[in-house]
Amino acid sequence: MAGEPIRTYPVERLREFCTRVFESFGVPADDARLASDVLAAADLRGIDSHGVARLHAYFELLDAGLVNPRANLRMVRELPGTATVDGDNGLGLVVGPKANAIAMDKASAAGSGWVAVCNTNHFGIAGYYPLQALDRGLIGWAMTNSTKFVAPLWGAQRMLGTNPIAVAFPGRDEPPVVIDLATSAVPYGKIEIALRAGKPVPEGWGIDRDGRPATRPEQIIDGGALLPLGGDREHGGHKGYCLAALVDILTGVLSGANWGPFTPAFALRQGVEASDRQVGLGIGHFFGALRIDGFMDPEEFRGRMDEWVRVFRATKPAAGTPGVVIPGDPERMAEAERRKSGIPLGGAVLADLRDIATRTGIAFD
Amino acid sequence: MAGEPIRTYPVERLREFCTRVFESFGVPADDARLASDVLAAADLRGIDSHGVARLHAYFELLDAGLVNPRANLRMVRELPGTATVDGDNGLGLVVGPKANAIAMDKASAAGSGWVAVCNTNHFGIAGYYPLQALDRGLIGWAMTNSTKFVAPLWGAQRMLGTNPIAVAFPGRDEPPVVIDLATSAVPYGKIEIALRAGKPVPEGWGIDRDGRPATRPEQIIDGGALLPLGGDREHGGHKGYCLAALVDILTGVLSGANWGPFTPAFALRQGVEASDRQVGLGIGHFFGALRIDGFMDPEEFRGRMDEWVRVFRATKPAAGTPGVVIPGDPERMAEAERRKSGIPLGGAVLADLRDIATRTGIAFD
Repeated sequence: MAGEPIRTYPVERLREFCTRVFESFGVPADDARLASDVLAAADLRGIDSHGVARLHAYFELLDAGLVNPRANLRMVRELPGTATVDGDNGLGLVVGPKANAIAMDKASAAGSGWVAVCNTNHFGIAGYYPLQALDRGLIGWAMTNSTKFVAPLWGAQRMLGTNPIAVAFPGRDEPPVVIDLATSAVPYGKIEIALRAGKPVPEGWGIDRDGRPATRPEQIIDGGALLPLGGDREHGGHKGYCLAALVDILTGVLSGANWGPFTPAFALRQGVEASDRQVGLGIGHFFGALRIDGFMDPEEFRGRMDEWVRVFRATKPAAGTPGVVIPGDPERMAEAERRKSGIPLGGAVLADLRDIATRTGIAFD
Repeated sequence: MAGEPIRTYPVERLREFCTRVFESFGVPADDARLASDVLAAADLRGIDSHGVARLHAYFELLDAGLVNPRANLRMVRELPGTATVDGDNGLGLVVGPKANAIAMDKASAAGSGWVAVCNTNHFGIAGYYPLQALDRGLIGWAMTNSTKFVAPLWGAQRMLGTNPIAVAFPGRDEPPVVIDLATSAVPYGKIEIALRAGKPVPEGWGIDRDGRPATRPEQIIDGGALLPLGGDREHGGHKGYCLAALVDILTGVLSGANWGPFTPAFALRQGVEASDRQVGLGIGHFFGALRIDGFMDPEEFRGRMDEWVRVFRATKPAAGTPGVVIPGDPERMAEAERRKSGIPLGGAVLADLRDIATRTGIAFD
């Protein structure tokens, strides 16, 4: 967008900047570091859309007083293996890790722990949370609902978010298998990129305002919608819709948050039509954790995971493709590279960060 | 297939026949009724491929001594919220409901209960299990791995089953939302139907033996494979692969069962190349249950689910479609109709059932 070339920054420098920005709004130091850690994880893992590129959106929400910088999580209900937590309208980047820790604590005690969260906001990359569980030797799950962009199959309205599901499994000598997928056919950002490039998008990504298949990005953006994973009925779009619904119900309906079309916009710039109705508080997350030794000797499991990874990696490659990728490999490789060389930031992101620097007085570069 | 026209049978008559067939192999009466109940549920819900149409496959496995008719489930490990159960190589139709009951018992006690199962066999429709949980006021989950038919994205080999995920949520005045989806683009049966009809299939369903997109059914059947939900990379096939992997790891790797390409063939007729290697026992299931009051007042949740159903049902319909379908609606409507009018069975299924009748001496019709 901006003409400035891409520049790379050490992750620590970006983390430090984010922490200071959050602190400038009164976010407690520990919470600010937690939030910055989630953003840094996205940048390290190559999920550029969810890292410091989003700091400006959080900045605007805090600046407008729409998010509570000093949120105190409140336990709404609990059993040994479940809980609902009210996030006090805090940053999802803070509420998320804390609620995930409750799920992990419950799993440590009872074998499995599941925590629904209401009154929270966008929590960064879903993959961050099961990685936290990996560090504690647990199998972790995370889901969240989010701003409406996706039509249910055979609908002509945005009713669901891109509602991701993330789960991770540890290996022994092989790296962990880290699954992190949105339940839409593609992210909304891909439509925006096509619009800027003046290019059509493939069928199966979106529909126009009447629900007809659309390949011109402006049709999808101007009153149209993304399709769920699978695309049309013939290609399994009903399944993607079911998965998005599953996430919406566990994260939004069961927690007491807003669900479906009532989820609030994540970013003020998104231009999402606000719902005239609230059916709960904020958006919702759902975290799970499982103790491996509740099922199998953990060393045996890790050995079996190694085998799984090796067998799948050795799959005969399809002609004209790079061959089978183990879930989590691309992000792990990006992280190794970016820890060495730094995080590449484009002109638009740099402009955003400098805008924050100007407005907060916190030096960026 | 056979020239005989479709005939309808009361579900009770089919259930009785199945029960007697299972008993004739020494399956205890209660277990035989359980197995017949799972098959009847498929026929009632309109999932014809998984009902009495499969009795012959179970019959053959029992007849060949490949499945243990008098299986005793053994608890391998457990914590308050987890367990692994060895199914003693029993019928999945018997092991599944019993292991699912353990997950529900654990959820009743601890709030959430998750049970991995090894040394088991094909368990019928995944949707049966969360329906059992609904009867107990719980949110239920079920997954299973299965015979390899699906290539991981960018692979040219069958490595994964169609690995379904099923979850159900109760309503108050509205019917429950029942999600039940295979993680492949389509079921293998759709390719066989196209082959018999001499018709091509859409792109995105399968690949040939080199991993190239295939639209002639014989290419997919003869050494090719199904694609995961999403199809190719551009349409999210990596996500369907991740979901199939998630199911395979939880059901197969974590339980001690066979996983991926090592899962045994379900039916002797399938002509699936047997693996020369075993990495565990049988196939694997994974059941979960959650107590609603561990998250929210159950009446409030049911009311919120009613709202969810009504809001999604009222979505503006896409042009040229019947409009948005609530997950579980088609199966519920099929059940209402079939309880009244009976289960329609085609000539090929009738021929199979009569073959069983002849060979067991149990009257069919």
